[in-house]
Amino acid sequence: MKQKAIQDYYPDDVAHCYGCGKLNEHGHQIKTFWDGDETVTKFIPRDYHTAIPGYVYGGLIASLIDCHGTGTGALAAYKAEGREYDSQPPLRFVTASLQVDYLKPTPLGVELELRGKVIEQKGRKVVSEIIVTANSVVTAKGKVVAVRMPENMVI
Amino acid sequence: MKQKAIQDYYPDDVAHCYGCGKLNEHGHQIKTFWDGDETVTKFIPRDYHTAIPGYVYGGLIASLIDCHGTGTGALAAYKAEGREYDSQPPLRFVTASLQVDYLKPTPLGVELELRGKVIEQKGRKVVSEIIVTANSVVTAKGKVVAVRMPENMVI
Repeated sequence: MKQKAIQDYYPDDVAHCYGCGKLNEHGHQIKTFWDGDETVTKFIPRDYHTAIPGYVYGGLIASLIDCHGTGTGALAAYKAEGREYDSQPPLRFVTASLQVDYLKPTPLGVELELRGKVIEQKGRKVVSEIIVTANSVVTAKGKVVAVRMPENMVI
Repeated sequence: MKQKAIQDYYPDDVAHCYGCGKLNEHGHQIKTFWDGDETVTKFIPRDYHTAIPGYVYGGLIASLIDCHGTGTGALAAYKAEGREYDSQPPLRFVTASLQVDYLKPTPLGVELELRGKVIEQKGRKVVSEIIVTANSVVTAKGKVVAVRMPENMVI
């Protein structure tokens, strides 16, 4: 059976994020899965997601890392609590801080792979390190501090 | 006379960045100006640039900070060299690293103001600190390490 992405379980009223909401028709609708102990998201940028000709603009890479980090936070939280993704209450994460190091220009026109590792999980916080790969070359590295969304922000 | 934004002087063949290229019809087309010793960009997110309902998604904020940082790098470089923006060769910057701290949720529906300060300028590198304000409240802080684009990347 095909594994479902964590974003497929975000409740409809918090599923409009431009980066990862399944209900945002303008957005990226990224999907994040476990792959062993790592989390994975794949994304093909559009031709207009350019920086200088032929390369992906840095803001998109930051955005993908950001939402991959919150998705990783949610995946890690369900795993730690031994809960199913559709159990209540939903566990959703927001970003407290984001760090991106751009190591090489990221080529346009190929699928990007983001792989995350949880490096700290404590209380409401999940910290992950994320690498971005294009054509098997690591082009960017990120670190995301994700915190569980306060219940009063979930509408 | 109205001050022109640094992005208005990016050569056409490097003016397609999704964040700040004047020729990217899909993109944000941000404009960055000097305001005294600070650099300023203003931007009104669209309704679909949402995270959770009513708030701006973090990836957009990261993207704005990123391009404001490269624009600030260019502005600072022309200033340091005492050069006009249309003098040759063009000075364009790319991002080496980006740090964003999300301090509060950023409300949707209002104009965001980004203000940058150059905190280090050495060789080809310009480091800036950037604050993002909505309704006069600082909602995010960023730091961008911008480096001058190698000549062989300018097509």
